[in-house]
Amino acid sequence: MAPQKTVGILGGGQLGRMLTHPAALLGIPLLILDSGDYTPAKQTLLPPEEHLSSGHLDGPFTSEKHIRELAKKCDILTVEIEHVNADVLESVEKEGLCQVQPSPSTIRLIQDKYEQKKYLNDKGIPVAPFKELSSLNPTENDVKDIVKELGLPIMLKAKTLAYDGRGNSPLQSIESEDIKKSLDFLGDRPLYAEGWCPFIKEVAVMVVRNKEGQVKSYDAVETIHRESILRVCLAPLRGDNVLGLNQKARKLAEDAVSHLQGAGIFGVEMFLMEDGSLLLNEIAPRPHNSGHHTIEACLTSQFENHLRAILSLPLGSTELIVPSAAMINILGSNGSMEPIEKMRDNALTVPGAKVHLYGKKESRKGRKMGHITITANSDNELSEKLRTILSAQPDAAEEWIDPIAPPKPELNHSNKKPLVGIIMGSDSDLPIMLPATKILNQFNIPYELTITSAHRTPDKMVKYAKSASNRGLRVVIAGAGGAAHLPGMVASETILPVIGVPVKASQLDGVDSLYSIVQMPRGIPCATVGINNSTNAALLAIRILGTSIPKYQIALEEYSKNLEQEVLEKCQVLENKGWENYVKDVLKK
Amino acid sequence: MAPQKTVGILGGGQLGRMLTHPAALLGIPLLILDSGDYTPAKQTLLPPEEHLSSGHLDGPFTSEKHIRELAKKCDILTVEIEHVNADVLESVEKEGLCQVQPSPSTIRLIQDKYEQKKYLNDKGIPVAPFKELSSLNPTENDVKDIVKELGLPIMLKAKTLAYDGRGNSPLQSIESEDIKKSLDFLGDRPLYAEGWCPFIKEVAVMVVRNKEGQVKSYDAVETIHRESILRVCLAPLRGDNVLGLNQKARKLAEDAVSHLQGAGIFGVEMFLMEDGSLLLNEIAPRPHNSGHHTIEACLTSQFENHLRAILSLPLGSTELIVPSAAMINILGSNGSMEPIEKMRDNALTVPGAKVHLYGKKESRKGRKMGHITITANSDNELSEKLRTILSAQPDAAEEWIDPIAPPKPELNHSNKKPLVGIIMGSDSDLPIMLPATKILNQFNIPYELTITSAHRTPDKMVKYAKSASNRGLRVVIAGAGGAAHLPGMVASETILPVIGVPVKASQLDGVDSLYSIVQMPRGIPCATVGINNSTNAALLAIRILGTSIPKYQIALEEYSKNLEQEVLEKCQVLENKGWENYVKDVLKK
Repeated sequence: MAPQKTVGILGGGQLGRMLTHPAALLGIPLLILDSGDYTPAKQTLLPPEEHLSSGHLDGPFTSEKHIRELAKKCDILTVEIEHVNADVLESVEKEGLCQVQPSPSTIRLIQDKYEQKKYLNDKGIPVAPFKELSSLNPTENDVKDIVKELGLPIMLKAKTLAYDGRGNSPLQSIESEDIKKSLDFLGDRPLYAEGWCPFIKEVAVMVVRNKEGQVKSYDAVETIHRESILRVCLAPLRGDNVLGLNQKARKLAEDAVSHLQGAGIFGVEMFLMEDGSLLLNEIAPRPHNSGHHTIEACLTSQFENHLRAILSLPLGSTELIVPSAAMINILGSNGSMEPIEKMRDNALTVPGAKVHLYGKKESRKGRKMGHITITANSDNELSEKLRTILSAQPDAAEEWIDPIAPPKPELNHSNKKPLVGIIMGSDSDLPIMLPATKILNQFNIPYELTITSAHRTPDKMVKYAKSASNRGLRVVIAGAGGAAHLPGMVASETILPVIGVPVKASQLDGVDSLYSIVQMPRGIPCATVGINNSTNAALLAIRILGTSIPKYQIALEEYSKNLEQEVLEKCQVLENKGWENYVKDVLKK
Repeated sequence: MAPQKTVGILGGGQLGRMLTHPAALLGIPLLILDSGDYTPAKQTLLPPEEHLSSGHLDGPFTSEKHIRELAKKCDILTVEIEHVNADVLESVEKEGLCQVQPSPSTIRLIQDKYEQKKYLNDKGIPVAPFKELSSLNPTENDVKDIVKELGLPIMLKAKTLAYDGRGNSPLQSIESEDIKKSLDFLGDRPLYAEGWCPFIKEVAVMVVRNKEGQVKSYDAVETIHRESILRVCLAPLRGDNVLGLNQKARKLAEDAVSHLQGAGIFGVEMFLMEDGSLLLNEIAPRPHNSGHHTIEACLTSQFENHLRAILSLPLGSTELIVPSAAMINILGSNGSMEPIEKMRDNALTVPGAKVHLYGKKESRKGRKMGHITITANSDNELSEKLRTILSAQPDAAEEWIDPIAPPKPELNHSNKKPLVGIIMGSDSDLPIMLPATKILNQFNIPYELTITSAHRTPDKMVKYAKSASNRGLRVVIAGAGGAAHLPGMVASETILPVIGVPVKASQLDGVDSLYSIVQMPRGIPCATVGINNSTNAALLAIRILGTSIPKYQIALEEYSKNLEQEVLEKCQVLENKGWENYVKDVLKK
């Protein structure tokens, strides 16, 4: 290729490693600075040909001498870790040795979690209540003073060099012993305190911005931590009224990033509170663990977009291309590689699970050794695969796996990750609607079933309809009789296809129900099937699912063939027996 | 990691390069044999740590000495090119230096295209008619004899070392001059001749097999060549009755591979003939250009599956995870890198286009310098993106781009890559069905529109319905009046959701049409909307499309909000004017 701009990366860990792949694909020369010749990132892309004999740079990514050496060989410096020497980066840029992205001022701000929080708070970004421990050697009383202000529990945090739970200590009481324990744990570092955030979920959004200030965010994801380490990430974010929440989270993340200087990818972590509000937790000025799924699940990965952003190439689309994805970290648990291998080997048996090992030679407790991405056609499929992967973890335990990836329901109970929702106005409609469940069972399609009435439980109906799409449903089947308003009303409150089953009530032979369902005003369609024909409603639902999940189309072909075969067999019997015997022997039975 | 089996690869080109990525992810140590320290594959994965200082092997992958050296350092040898020394591989394996996969006997068989064809033909695999030119220095008369047998035109082919069009010469006449030209072009090599194959499409299937004989194939793709070089690959294969064709092609490919020895991935190229039959063209015993799209478009790439197969790891799912994908080769056109850069830079502007450069330093005419994969939500979206990419090629020309990626249709004409099909029984239904086109235009959804009658053009109707899904349609809207059989009959011949619009005919106010459409027998559903309400049919179609294409869900939300706003605005006018004025001023207009 004609001369490309050479990118220098401070840090040669897994984030650097994942930057090497898009760099190779796009022909971007990379030089990596880290100690050792065989770090994760140095393994997966040779330095540009002119540096081939000397190789990547060997030395600490915090060392001024080495940063300067790298800067001289590069056009653009970036980081895969924020714990670098921001002062050196600043002078390197001022002296015109090379560009630095994101801006050293951003890296410096983010290094100090207290300053970061203060800055964002000043800019009007909502954050949890927080306060500095001004003294460098805080006493019990300093802590008690803060507890007076922020209440209990609080989280004591080191301002700098804190990640993956290191540098955080929760404080539940103001007993001297507890305070002492926390202060001892955190050691001799500048501290601050955060008020307790009783969040219901943790949410993260990756945001990419180029030098021209153009910003694109990825869909929000749910992040699940244990002992302050990210364990599982679920995309897209699900829950009641999530479409709105996703937009809100993306907006907040974009706003926060807009207050920082420089180009690149940013990971924005947030708390979702019970009232639906979001509080910003912290920002990483680099690729982030909560964006690893973007490699397989999005049109452009966070890593490729980081390179595009710092090189002023067009930003890539952040669109999610699969209905459902998850990322599971592979953590070191002890000195042995065996548990890592076990997780890898287990994942190889799961269709759609993609293993990413980081090439680290030593396993340590809590160390990120790799991750597994799962992509699936639906939340339900994802959940089954996720369950298999999570169960292979060394610390697997039902009580934390079940809420993330619930087990299959008992027969005649609703699936927790349904694709189809069956609702009806009254329990008296149940016998008419049961054939739909038989068909869905036969096709092994996850569904839920409940009663909600347009006239008797209007609030429940509205809530059901409004949340249907956000909970991962793709079709709703609604049965109702008489003045049968349920299907049409539900159709008015969702953008999912709604299939109406007219139930024959006591009057008018079901014609009242049929007309009430089919004759919707222009603008709100309701897919109507024959009177009492919930079988066809289920089959129509499967045809709709088949447009996004090919295996259901194959199952439908099979079903049609069987239908044909059944009729042809009856035909054979009729011809063999003669029609009078057929009526007597077959029909009368 | 605990000791992994080390894989040695003969050849360090782009196929080897694409093997390095899954090897890194799974922690598989690789050693590459090729001449030079900076070949495509050597750039993207360091040798295992114990070989770090000595590096990958430098030497020709055909040299016995070098193959033996590699074999001593590896557990399993494999190839990324079949033009290797099969005898050496055989002895290396016999001596127990290491395993070789696929089997050297398979590599030897495939090296000789004539022997390959003969072998497959003997096993009952359908191939084009072919015949050996037995003489080593064939004369004009030898060729004339063969033409007598196979007819004209024929393709003269070198038995060995032929790829990307090198080693093939078509012969259109038996003029001495033409024969001489062909023989001169092919030079002093053993030749054979193939009878002309008037195929309508070229089709390819990737097949992976492990040592235990388990076989998995990927979905068939259409391959488009120019001057014998693969240019574009489209997945999945589309066309009339393709579901059956896909199965047939996969079956044929699996059968053919089952006659070969050893584990690994195989590329099987076929001709699709006018009568729907398939002829096997040739097999590659390695990753193949027609499987590059599997990196982004399938759950497991051909490269990862090759490694899994030769290492006896569980084979990965071959499932396609996107509705539509394409691969476009980036070919060298002259000594300059400029056209390559132009294609890359252009692709960076196309959402969902993924550039893969191979790290080759020299561009030569016809040399494969990289490829671009496009993934999309639909054939239509793919087609638009593909058009942009193809138009940036140095040899771009409308006459070969248009058939692959047709331009947008004029207003009121059918799209060639439709998602929705609108049909009606008679042109008299057209005024009733036009509102559906307005809605689809408003949402920018590609559709086609035609007339087909259940009673007057039953053959056309059946053909339309049977091919609908295979042509990429996702929903059919059918309008009919009176004894309205069209929607239900179409539903009987397709597994797509069919939306029926009851058209009000001259009698019974449309109730006849409604009942004829909605009261389908159990087993075949038809989604019925209100009488004459084609607007709702279109909106229902969009709701169905929204279950697989998220942007349409967002558009529907917008539409619903606008509907609400419109009514609220009318309400405001009503309250301001008073109702008597409202009737006079607004309704009467």
